[in-house]
Amino acid sequence: MSPRIVEVREGILKKNDALAGELRTRFRQAGLSVVSLVSSPGAGKTALLERTLAGLRATDRVAALVGDLATDRDAQRLGRAGVPVRQITTGTVCHLDAEMVARALDDWRLADLDLLFIENVGNLVCPASYDLGESLRVVLMSVTEGEDKPLKYPTIFNSADLAVITKCDLAAAVEFRRAEAEANVRLVRPGIEILATSARTGEGFDAWLDRLRRLRGAGQGTS
Amino acid sequence: MSPRIVEVREGILKKNDALAGELRTRFRQAGLSVVSLVSSPGAGKTALLERTLAGLRATDRVAALVGDLATDRDAQRLGRAGVPVRQITTGTVCHLDAEMVARALDDWRLADLDLLFIENVGNLVCPASYDLGESLRVVLMSVTEGEDKPLKYPTIFNSADLAVITKCDLAAAVEFRRAEAEANVRLVRPGIEILATSARTGEGFDAWLDRLRRLRGAGQGTS
Repeated sequence: MSPRIVEVREGILKKNDALAGELRTRFRQAGLSVVSLVSSPGAGKTALLERTLAGLRATDRVAALVGDLATDRDAQRLGRAGVPVRQITTGTVCHLDAEMVARALDDWRLADLDLLFIENVGNLVCPASYDLGESLRVVLMSVTEGEDKPLKYPTIFNSADLAVITKCDLAAAVEFRRAEAEANVRLVRPGIEILATSARTGEGFDAWLDRLRRLRGAGQGTS
Repeated sequence: MSPRIVEVREGILKKNDALAGELRTRFRQAGLSVVSLVSSPGAGKTALLERTLAGLRATDRVAALVGDLATDRDAQRLGRAGVPVRQITTGTVCHLDAEMVARALDDWRLADLDLLFIENVGNLVCPASYDLGESLRVVLMSVTEGEDKPLKYPTIFNSADLAVITKCDLAAAVEFRRAEAEANVRLVRPGIEILATSARTGEGFDAWLDRLRRLRGAGQGTS
């Protein structure tokens, strides 16, 4: 990268960090836990979220922001769960940033929510550098992508707090080697918690929903 | 995006376009056809390329450049085909650019090659804007990613000359709706040629290899 673009990029990231810090304070004051999801396109963020919102909405006040370059398809899909959902359309921008999140939440009463999910643009590179004020960043990795993705996209795995393996119902069909995949995740992010799920069969969702409910308790405890 | 970043980005793209133009001239003068591959991470670029190099090397002088943020795993995989392969490691940069390609080819005798493949970093957003001097840009889309990806990442599909659907051996397992996927590709890129393949079973490879051989002929015809 040219020195000029590095300098401009650093300025942008610094501004984003400051805004994300403000968002994090607002979230904490409202007693709101925020979970962001990052992955490559088609790893199953929206499918995971559909089943998650359906599983939580009876007990928790949940909502979602979903990022895409174009279309509001994901918001339409998630809206069927009957919870507040808003699409952020980024145009040509390859990631969400804190300003987009702040703008999307402008007219929401955060104190009326327990858990907010933010689904990033499908991209295993650029979202890594942008703090969104979330309490938990979850990186998804589908069994169909290959076991080596953490090694090839280390920055985003290293920026995550939790890894979720998705589409486990296809694991046998693609001869997925789970132990190797998990070892690769932990090579770039030692000690990270890893869950394995299938949004189609529900495999792993008890552990995933439990994890989210614990987060909610923790979020409220510190507010 | 801030006006400042837009301005810097435009400068970078302009410089890239100029360098890509020079590369394109060098490739044409050497009688070399260059095919670039873009897709999301794990869509099967390397698997397609492995089978492609194996299928062409008896009749054509082929080589490959492969881009990744980190590791030289793809170059190692492709190197087993016994053809020249070089890895471009981008660090944190989310795409290849013309300068990286020019640098990687610095000590290669291009006139000794018929077909050069350039595998981009797995990313459905950022590579769209960077011309690499290629004769043919191929966008891959695996059946496991969902039929709506062209609508959600229109810019990269719109920048491609050919779309290849990959992992067709998994189509039934994921209930892939091919007609819908193809309609979505052509909504954002009217008239584009679409091939359907499986690097595992070899489905569609006769048509794909024929397409590449025709390109080779065309490249030599205009040199």
